[in-house]
Amino acid sequence: MTSLQTIRDACRTLSAGDEEAAAAAASRQDTLTKPPGSLGRLETLVAWLARWQGRAMPRLDQVAVLVFAGNHGVTARGVSPYPPEVTAQMVANFRHGGAAINQLARLAGAVLHVIPLDLEAPTADFTTSPAMTEADFIAAFAAGQDAVPDGADLLCLGEMGIGNTTAAAALSAALFGGTGADWAGRGTGVDDDGLTRKMAAIDAGLARHAPSDPLDAARTLGGRELAAILGATLAARQRGIPVLLDGFVCTAAAAPLARLAPDGLAHCVAAHVSAEAAHRKLLVALDLPPLLDLGMRLGEASGAALAILTLRAALACHSGMATFAEAAVTDRTG
Amino acid sequence: MTSLQTIRDACRTLSAGDEEAAAAAASRQDTLTKPPGSLGRLETLVAWLARWQGRAMPRLDQVAVLVFAGNHGVTARGVSPYPPEVTAQMVANFRHGGAAINQLARLAGAVLHVIPLDLEAPTADFTTSPAMTEADFIAAFAAGQDAVPDGADLLCLGEMGIGNTTAAAALSAALFGGTGADWAGRGTGVDDDGLTRKMAAIDAGLARHAPSDPLDAARTLGGRELAAILGATLAARQRGIPVLLDGFVCTAAAAPLARLAPDGLAHCVAAHVSAEAAHRKLLVALDLPPLLDLGMRLGEASGAALAILTLRAALACHSGMATFAEAAVTDRTG
Repeated sequence: MTSLQTIRDACRTLSAGDEEAAAAAASRQDTLTKPPGSLGRLETLVAWLARWQGRAMPRLDQVAVLVFAGNHGVTARGVSPYPPEVTAQMVANFRHGGAAINQLARLAGAVLHVIPLDLEAPTADFTTSPAMTEADFIAAFAAGQDAVPDGADLLCLGEMGIGNTTAAAALSAALFGGTGADWAGRGTGVDDDGLTRKMAAIDAGLARHAPSDPLDAARTLGGRELAAILGATLAARQRGIPVLLDGFVCTAAAAPLARLAPDGLAHCVAAHVSAEAAHRKLLVALDLPPLLDLGMRLGEASGAALAILTLRAALACHSGMATFAEAAVTDRTG
Repeated sequence: MTSLQTIRDACRTLSAGDEEAAAAAASRQDTLTKPPGSLGRLETLVAWLARWQGRAMPRLDQVAVLVFAGNHGVTARGVSPYPPEVTAQMVANFRHGGAAINQLARLAGAVLHVIPLDLEAPTADFTTSPAMTEADFIAAFAAGQDAVPDGADLLCLGEMGIGNTTAAAALSAALFGGTGADWAGRGTGVDDDGLTRKMAAIDAGLARHAPSDPLDAARTLGGRELAAILGATLAARQRGIPVLLDGFVCTAAAAPLARLAPDGLAHCVAAHVSAEAAHRKLLVALDLPPLLDLGMRLGEASGAALAILTLRAALACHSGMATFAEAAVTDRTG
């Protein structure tokens, strides 16, 4: 993509998925040896996978977890209890297999891809300048598109970046209204003074940039890893890959797509709702009911990786259960 | 156990678990490369496993899923859309591997045990007589105790029995107050007339037996599979095995233990909250916050089996993650 306008146009030209495959999956569910609908969300998840994979019998043979990492100039405002060098240290931890996402991706049978984005050159402090130039934003967006592996059956998106709940809160406020007080939370565990600084930074960013366009909001207030998540989310839609979104930062990063097209995130499921309070508010605004609610607030795609297991369970039932006819079980009398 | 009084006494003499193992597990969590508490319930679940297994590093090598099946005389009141012969047909389906629980147990690395309890001799219709004699109840309770495998690291409990949401609703009303209207739901999908009949049957049972003792409530209004779940729950506590409870029927079956001892279900986690509305009410009454909320209402331990995956994820993080020191990641500044 070579300009914001090209990206904007692409976000507004989206497929509606494979209605026929979704209907076929739903029909099969009603023949399986259980009361209709009794597997709840496991049933609707299969139809969702079928729609976006374009297969009545979906598969989860190749599951990719993408964790994008970025650094943020707004950390200069004292918005996080951790120093910015932790971003690169955690990228090293991902590469050595020591982080939560390594354990969760392995358990879920997914391949982890870690994509650091210019960690040595943080985005600008958005309280004083746009976080990114157009060229920076487009490059990060393209890095996200390019990171989506060929042939993936499911994509899990996540991030790492000290300071990025501040960026996510500012972006959410720009997209859905409200102020720092509405969208700022404790992030990795900021204290009361830090939370006050975080709200003030968000309000300063909103006042300075007042972006009316969703992509401009992502460029001026977001971060490279957020732009990359947006690019990956669009690429997944274009290539027939359903997406599990992780927590608050990841959802905020993908949200511009929903502001540009009403069903822009229809190929995404919110894997979980984070303990970061703004996430619940954002999911309500996006009409994305979360799959899991376990009080997690780690990021790094941890919630998304955990939700892969729920999808595997849904698929195991769909493909492995006997029908009433096969099992000679009497169907309902009424 | 040879009498209701023996069972009652055993339910009132329970261990408090291994406090030291739980504390050691929690301490380790705080050294791992993540903000403290950021894995939410995954962290507290590990401490819970540690407490009840009595091991600071819990394990899930041997996970057993027990599905108890029973038939219910109260089906004569037209409380279910499925005929009672479906109970035995589903037991056959479990044995042939065609049910949801077969797929879920396999995915979760658990061994499924199916225990039918005198299916050819349904319990009495509780609107006219006690569901079970004392001898019947004690035999079913003992079958549950005996079914708990030696050396299990985790027990998942579930049930199958046409008509058993009616028994569970009556038992819940007897234990926690209220009427058929408060506790009856659609079960496998009963229509409006059936729901009215179900409420009336519950009210008739409550009026007839008015049990004040929890075990007497389980005997007069419950069922064999419910009594067996209660026996298995007690045996697990006595033998240091944490328990995942499945849905409404399973939770109601175990509830007498909580009425006999204030922390009687401390070794149990509610795997999920069912779409059967009374389950949420029952979990609130028992102070058991559910792990999953996916609109499932199938029973047969399906929700419990799904929750095993969450426990495996918790344990994978606990045992596989690097500490801040090991990974050379800078800990919080404040």
